[in-house]
Amino acid sequence: MTSLTTLEPLVLDGFREAVGREHVIESPLEVFGYSYDASFLALDRSTVPQAVVRPRTTQEISRVMAFAHQQRIPVTPRGAASGRTGGSVPLEGGIVLALDRMTSILELDTANMMVSAEPGVRTADLHDHCARQGLFFPPDPGSWKFSTLGGNVAENAGGMRAVKYGVTRDYVMGLEVVLADGSILETGGKAVKNVTGYDLTSLFVGSEGTLGIVSKALFRLRPLPKARGVIRVIFRTMDEACSAVQEMLLDGVTPSAAEIMDATCLEAVARARNTRVEPGAGACLILEIDGDGASSLEAQSLRIDTITRQAGCITFRSAASKEETEAIWAERRGLSSAVAAMAPNRLGEDISVPRSAFPEVVRRINAIASTTKLRIPVFGHAGDGNLHPSVLCDLGNPDEAARAHQAVDGIFKAALDLGGTLSGEHGIGISKRPYFADAVGPVSLATHRAIKGALDPLGLLNPGKIW
Amino acid sequence: MTSLTTLEPLVLDGFREAVGREHVIESPLEVFGYSYDASFLALDRSTVPQAVVRPRTTQEISRVMAFAHQQRIPVTPRGAASGRTGGSVPLEGGIVLALDRMTSILELDTANMMVSAEPGVRTADLHDHCARQGLFFPPDPGSWKFSTLGGNVAENAGGMRAVKYGVTRDYVMGLEVVLADGSILETGGKAVKNVTGYDLTSLFVGSEGTLGIVSKALFRLRPLPKARGVIRVIFRTMDEACSAVQEMLLDGVTPSAAEIMDATCLEAVARARNTRVEPGAGACLILEIDGDGASSLEAQSLRIDTITRQAGCITFRSAASKEETEAIWAERRGLSSAVAAMAPNRLGEDISVPRSAFPEVVRRINAIASTTKLRIPVFGHAGDGNLHPSVLCDLGNPDEAARAHQAVDGIFKAALDLGGTLSGEHGIGISKRPYFADAVGPVSLATHRAIKGALDPLGLLNPGKIW
Repeated sequence: MTSLTTLEPLVLDGFREAVGREHVIESPLEVFGYSYDASFLALDRSTVPQAVVRPRTTQEISRVMAFAHQQRIPVTPRGAASGRTGGSVPLEGGIVLALDRMTSILELDTANMMVSAEPGVRTADLHDHCARQGLFFPPDPGSWKFSTLGGNVAENAGGMRAVKYGVTRDYVMGLEVVLADGSILETGGKAVKNVTGYDLTSLFVGSEGTLGIVSKALFRLRPLPKARGVIRVIFRTMDEACSAVQEMLLDGVTPSAAEIMDATCLEAVARARNTRVEPGAGACLILEIDGDGASSLEAQSLRIDTITRQAGCITFRSAASKEETEAIWAERRGLSSAVAAMAPNRLGEDISVPRSAFPEVVRRINAIASTTKLRIPVFGHAGDGNLHPSVLCDLGNPDEAARAHQAVDGIFKAALDLGGTLSGEHGIGISKRPYFADAVGPVSLATHRAIKGALDPLGLLNPGKIW
Repeated sequence: MTSLTTLEPLVLDGFREAVGREHVIESPLEVFGYSYDASFLALDRSTVPQAVVRPRTTQEISRVMAFAHQQRIPVTPRGAASGRTGGSVPLEGGIVLALDRMTSILELDTANMMVSAEPGVRTADLHDHCARQGLFFPPDPGSWKFSTLGGNVAENAGGMRAVKYGVTRDYVMGLEVVLADGSILETGGKAVKNVTGYDLTSLFVGSEGTLGIVSKALFRLRPLPKARGVIRVIFRTMDEACSAVQEMLLDGVTPSAAEIMDATCLEAVARARNTRVEPGAGACLILEIDGDGASSLEAQSLRIDTITRQAGCITFRSAASKEETEAIWAERRGLSSAVAAMAPNRLGEDISVPRSAFPEVVRRINAIASTTKLRIPVFGHAGDGNLHPSVLCDLGNPDEAARAHQAVDGIFKAALDLGGTLSGEHGIGISKRPYFADAVGPVSLATHRAIKGALDPLGLLNPGKIW
């Protein structure tokens, strides 16, 4: 590990030349603000960068990388630092490359339904910009009001709409990437069909900043759905709720969101909102549907009514007004903080399993909760098998902390056992790194290393992440 | 280039041990059958392999690769050899690895709507197998009745339905790949959301057999559409036809196929079928729509009627019977051979441009036809900017051959000028290799080489392809 002394003045000068003196941050107080992210990881070493460099253009990024390469200085790229696994936390000193000045939406091409933007643009801002022209940018990670596109691309961000519309990767048509040595790579483009060479675009999406710095991204868009509706359905068990979602998807009635929460989540939300849980409620589905207009929504709603009834639902409520829609969504939005309020600490996980294994993984998590004597409420995206169990605990209590980490290990093991993965949408970063090699196996690990070695032979880009 | 003498007996023995003596083909007459594909390339060197090895299992492929690696023997993988750019044609001697014995559909998982299969399964057979369970495998390359899945994955095959349903890559959830040294890599899986490490799956899709041998593939499926309809619309100009398609997509009425053909194509088909072209017809659109049932089709058809009328169509015909549907599709299906019948030779190309540039690239192709004094009918997939200009010529006439190649160069240049690519769905293979470096630029070329070097350091896998 590099010792965290201040860089020599000469070395810093190269970065100052690249981006301008005023865009290199050196004061210990200020650089501290670039040392953490939304994972709130308990780390065993300092993560304070030696300096923060804030380029404005691709050319400036290129000069920064060329200089860092020449001087063998580690570079940790950073967007809004809203990541949940430590992806933007510097581990080896060096510089943080902050992309917060690159905030331009470059071109909205309505004819081709595509938009290009710089990495520092906020996800929700891009969405709104396109929506004003009747176009739709679907990826909606929970943090979309503050997360930025560079991070979305680096982590292949998901969200609630993934069940119908896919994740960030499904929208990236092309990238401009500054490589470890400062050279500028362009991938993809506006041609919808393209089989010219390797799919470099997809290789960079989800690579967590370890292969290059995304300096520009081109996304495809869809027509904005003309109408949306929300449905709330209560079931006795998670099994029933899951099988209802399964039936919808097989029937081709794909909701644009299919959020599920268990009894403990319902209880947490009711406590926070001062309401009561329906008697017998063991699971809740919040479904969003969208379409061409009222008649399309009605047809979908009818079909969902039939399917959820067959699956044994207790109550079915289709929002009839704006207020009712808002009330249903408020329940889902308040969920995360309501769950967090149940204990001093929460270890929020993000496993993903084959859709059919959702009920079984929930059963195993309940068993883990019972063994470790901890509460582990579960909510998630039922339509794509991505769930977020929250291990509630008091990390100040050593015995409880040990049981909490045992629970997390058990949850990962259950996911892998059932053909699932360590992460559905948060990435590996630092927090899941200890599990990566076992999850993917030795041949995949060697392949990852070979690709990393080919594109970043000095290992300077976001060192210490993924594996 | 390796000299094409018969391999030493000792060397061949290793392959015989790997797959069984009866599955190694050595006779010159028989190996000749593995020396060409559907590109009918005029090559300046022999492409006859030294032997053909036909494994039945992943383990056998692994042993073959390990032995080839140890002996430094080039390996050219081969499916149905239906490729259009020479991807499965051996250029450096060595062995052809024929996957024609690996023809099992392994598991149809209806709950997760996924299917896994071996590389030698025919595309149409997989489609039919899934359709019997109400599930839909959309990729439909023109050759789908004989092309096989391994080749579809290696070339990222497209097809007519790509406009609504995407291409092969959009369906690959995971792969089992035998790497150059014989090690077996597994990527992806049944978890719909997965951000664990690099997207190795997408890296192998479209890599044209240069990075590994696909020994198994897992595909996601969709519910089979319950109803389909076909519409034929005639316009005065290609511009009008293109703008109608543009409008449909912006409006969210996405046809499941949007095939376009120009006046020369219409004339070729009419001549072949002994019919007449409508007076004033300059372009024809054949649209397929699909949906939940009759009312969904009717709504789409009405919307398309309005849009095509606004775009200035001459005739609009929505097939009302099975016979009418069949007659319209027969026109499209007969197109390729009708065009080919117009001249002794045809150089069929496969460029792809941003959707909005479709009319302009057609204008430029017409100008090239005029300059080179050749006929170049154009048909293609209007919905995704992928077009197939056919340079008609007599290659036996040296002057005409020169002009034909000049026309092909001009077509590629036009595509690249307009932000397009060399290939929408056929790949680069041998035939577009001379254009690849210019098309992607030096940084991308170096990145391709670095990745190839990392995964196949000895350069044994499908040598001489792409660049």
